[in-house]
Amino acid sequence: MKVTQVRNATLLVEIADTTFLIDPMLAEKESWDGFAETARSHLRNPMTELPLPIDELIKADIVIVTHTHMDHWDDAAQKQLPPNKLIFAQSEEDADVIRSQGFTNVRVLQDENNFINGLTIHKVDGQHGSNEAYANPEKAEGLGDACGLVFTMHDEKTLYIAGDTVWVKPYVYTLKKYKPDVVVINAGDAHIDGYGPIIMGAEDTLRTLQVLPDTTIVASHLEAINHCLLTRKELRRFTLEHGIENKVLIPEDGEVLKF
Amino acid sequence: MKVTQVRNATLLVEIADTTFLIDPMLAEKESWDGFAETARSHLRNPMTELPLPIDELIKADIVIVTHTHMDHWDDAAQKQLPPNKLIFAQSEEDADVIRSQGFTNVRVLQDENNFINGLTIHKVDGQHGSNEAYANPEKAEGLGDACGLVFTMHDEKTLYIAGDTVWVKPYVYTLKKYKPDVVVINAGDAHIDGYGPIIMGAEDTLRTLQVLPDTTIVASHLEAINHCLLTRKELRRFTLEHGIENKVLIPEDGEVLKF
Repeated sequence: MKVTQVRNATLLVEIADTTFLIDPMLAEKESWDGFAETARSHLRNPMTELPLPIDELIKADIVIVTHTHMDHWDDAAQKQLPPNKLIFAQSEEDADVIRSQGFTNVRVLQDENNFINGLTIHKVDGQHGSNEAYANPEKAEGLGDACGLVFTMHDEKTLYIAGDTVWVKPYVYTLKKYKPDVVVINAGDAHIDGYGPIIMGAEDTLRTLQVLPDTTIVASHLEAINHCLLTRKELRRFTLEHGIENKVLIPEDGEVLKF
Repeated sequence: MKVTQVRNATLLVEIADTTFLIDPMLAEKESWDGFAETARSHLRNPMTELPLPIDELIKADIVIVTHTHMDHWDDAAQKQLPPNKLIFAQSEEDADVIRSQGFTNVRVLQDENNFINGLTIHKVDGQHGSNEAYANPEKAEGLGDACGLVFTMHDEKTLYIAGDTVWVKPYVYTLKKYKPDVVVINAGDAHIDGYGPIIMGAEDTLRTLQVLPDTTIVASHLEAINHCLLTRKELRRFTLEHGIENKVLIPEDGEVLKF
């Protein structure tokens, strides 16, 4: 299995003779404004260039969009991907949004989705912000849902892409249920004004290893979007302080990991 | 429909010619120690007497145990209920626990459960503590799962018994999905040492009305267990301060509400 950290939450996952493009954000550097009412909203997004040629990304066999926030599914992706590309969305609602953008081959992820060679992708839940954020009807609406993905296949490592979630009970239960060998966490510690983090941060790498000491963590969703406050350097320092530097991979954009 | 606040989270729900006994805690006052590592653990439980004769409670047609914590399913309930009583548990795991206590007619709640006269009880999820508590493997194990229950029936009000949960995304989604006319929340603000509340509190009555302005809230799980810090008097003052006193019912133990 190969996992390429593209940029932000955009990943390429190569498994079962299939290339999955996850959460494509394909815009050029500083194409759009920072997210309003979030940390450092004066900065423009993406904060970095795409590290790979777009053509290499859009030729992926299958696209999975964990949710339609702009840093996971942007205008550039909508323009660059062929309209007949097979795209999976987390829900009928998201699928309708993507269809309305001109895509003709959009499907909805079920709880279990079977692909070739015995690959199953399990859709799992998370919570894209603090409990307090979900107590504010406007924030709850804006944050909405974002799914996680667990890839299971005989003779392959189990890969859990946790997606945009904070640490909540469903995350723990997914760790315990699937005992993934590799967990990709969106660790950028993105903050929205007044309601704290909406994704994971440094501390969650340590917590994950307390639940699953033998797993390998891949830290993604770092240093590309205005509201992501944790840097790779800070995360590396945190892992060194806690002696977990060998268990937490912090790939650069464009870096390929093999499992 | 009639809902009787018995004591703590113990309720009688009379609907569809059926009487449901929810979360029976039937011990005499101060029968057992306060919960260790929780607020005011020096106090003994229950802090109050049962307000109704046990015989009236145990003749209920069906018992539902949202989880097996002692303040929802205690030794007295296990001794007093007939071994062949029909009992529903939230999971196979809980059902096995209850069977091991000598009960012979234990079933597991499915997501939807159909009863007579078109009554459906939907099992819904929550989170029995803070995100931080679920980041501590020992606390996560101890808190575990607790389900909520939504009663739907033609020509009856929709009743949501939220159970032991803090405010999390699934709670909001249950409110939005079922738009219950009545929401019973366990509002006692129970605290565990170092990890804050494990059920709802005063603030959550207001938040619930922000999502569903027309619902009626019933505050339960108050003033019976050592770690429940919110009193009825304080909750009443909170509702008066926020002008929601007509939307938040705070029944005394033994009080019967009709909807």
